[in-house]
Amino acid sequence: MHNISELQKIIETAIPNIAYPAHPKNLYEPIKYIMNLGGKRLRPALVLLAADMFNGEVEKALPAALAIETFHNFTLIHDDIMDNAPLRRGQTTVHEKWGTNNAILSGDVMMVEANKQLAQVDSALLKEVLNTFNATAQGVCEGQQLDMEFETRDDVSIPEYIDMIRLKTAVLVGGALKLGAIIAHASTEHAALIYEFGENLGIAFQLQDDILDVYGDPAKFGKQVGGDIISNKKTFLLLSLQQRLTTADQGILDEQFLNQTDSKVKNVTNLYNQYQIRELATEEMQSYLVKAFNALKQINIPAEQKEQLIALANELMNRES
Amino acid sequence: MHNISELQKIIETAIPNIAYPAHPKNLYEPIKYIMNLGGKRLRPALVLLAADMFNGEVEKALPAALAIETFHNFTLIHDDIMDNAPLRRGQTTVHEKWGTNNAILSGDVMMVEANKQLAQVDSALLKEVLNTFNATAQGVCEGQQLDMEFETRDDVSIPEYIDMIRLKTAVLVGGALKLGAIIAHASTEHAALIYEFGENLGIAFQLQDDILDVYGDPAKFGKQVGGDIISNKKTFLLLSLQQRLTTADQGILDEQFLNQTDSKVKNVTNLYNQYQIRELATEEMQSYLVKAFNALKQINIPAEQKEQLIALANELMNRES
Repeated sequence: MHNISELQKIIETAIPNIAYPAHPKNLYEPIKYIMNLGGKRLRPALVLLAADMFNGEVEKALPAALAIETFHNFTLIHDDIMDNAPLRRGQTTVHEKWGTNNAILSGDVMMVEANKQLAQVDSALLKEVLNTFNATAQGVCEGQQLDMEFETRDDVSIPEYIDMIRLKTAVLVGGALKLGAIIAHASTEHAALIYEFGENLGIAFQLQDDILDVYGDPAKFGKQVGGDIISNKKTFLLLSLQQRLTTADQGILDEQFLNQTDSKVKNVTNLYNQYQIRELATEEMQSYLVKAFNALKQINIPAEQKEQLIALANELMNRES
Repeated sequence: MHNISELQKIIETAIPNIAYPAHPKNLYEPIKYIMNLGGKRLRPALVLLAADMFNGEVEKALPAALAIETFHNFTLIHDDIMDNAPLRRGQTTVHEKWGTNNAILSGDVMMVEANKQLAQVDSALLKEVLNTFNATAQGVCEGQQLDMEFETRDDVSIPEYIDMIRLKTAVLVGGALKLGAIIAHASTEHAALIYEFGENLGIAFQLQDDILDVYGDPAKFGKQVGGDIISNKKTFLLLSLQQRLTTADQGILDEQFLNQTDSKVKNVTNLYNQYQIRELATEEMQSYLVKAFNALKQINIPAEQKEQLIALANELMNRES
């Protein structure tokens, strides 16, 4: 069994070796640029990890892992256009560097590149692999659509929010693991269970992100603590708070939405504290972790084959950034 | 054997029956909207026609045909964003109706829908089908990139232009025919030849488009005659003219680039006439038709099986709009 950092290294080594056509240069340069911006390579590593866990050959799962990473980076290019984001991993975004039209088109051709990588999978597995990949890709697009729509809606419910993060973030975690399982010839039942593990872990991961944004240690968080508060982002925390506020406190929160000063993060955090929103969010997060580990428990393989996945899940859930 | 209008009818009937998810509504409504805007359905009909020609079942080729039509309409949504186009087939474009971000994302998910349709193909043929589809999709993206880049370049050569229209337009014609051939279990050689036929026909078709834009009968053309001239589009005609102009006439053309009056179309057409550019373009178009029909001749099947394709090619090349 490989540990996660070995798998991440395999991905990290493979990415600069992906061959793209030389021309048109401006179509393919942005792909190399974003693919080599770094990141933890967690999603593709999960493909390899699942293959390894079900006694498959890691090498055989590599094309699907690269397809997942390529797809993920394609969504980043298009999301950054939609969000008008100037920076990605501290570097200029593709649309800022090459222009929006070029960024749309480089993203489009990345989707094709992802499908080309996927088409390298064994013929006998191809249909199942495609079905999983397409369902995943579709979910991610739906999640992004909902995320955009939520920005201008003021009646987003908590189940809607959970469904949005499930689609936008968690489906890809589940899909990556399931792809690895399929390539390792895991049973349909095991493939479904590892997907269930991944999807629930992904939801827990995003809820933890929402918590860290407010309660992260500024020295370790890496981003500005309170970023979601500053942008009035409808996170699990904010939606939960809004459900619980007294009318008087609702007034305080409404004022904060317009607050442009430094006091905003502190004031909203105070409301979170007052209504014990952190505890509520942590409880919600734990409930998805329980679901994830229940699914994993049902996978009937020797415990040592699950060790790396459990180690990774624990590492992710104890992160501080 | 089915004739082309029967095949177009099969497509026309199938399109409104494609099932998309109901939610998020704004993600899928634009897909239904553009897929139902009409058009001649030539590309998907070519998939069916090739399958029929090689004695395959038309029904079995339908998913690939719908994938081709879905992909084509996805490129229309994204191209219209890039071109800032207000209208498509006389109706409001998707990005005008739903906003640019929504249009980007609906386009993205259409690419997934195309891949889902493709994944319905027989498992045994899937790898070859995917490879053909992916190569086609990649070519179309490359062609669009070159087309955009040519707008701001003043040193576009004729071979570069031909390569651009090959990628942007012709590769999809060849790819559609090849998909049909593969699904009908045609030999690799026959699949390559039908591709070659289609690619060359596609180049001839686009050259004819360039000619019709200037020399079309205003009563029959459907669009404004001279549209390419008005927008200074670098067509085969313009590039050929620029190669041949005397220095004095170059000055006349340069003036026309800035001419905003109605006289522009007439003045540039006069230059085309003076340098016999129509004849030159017709000759070039004919040379690609010859290549196309040479490829078709090498396909070793009974002549009557080729009849529908030949009828279609003749119809296309004798069109007036």
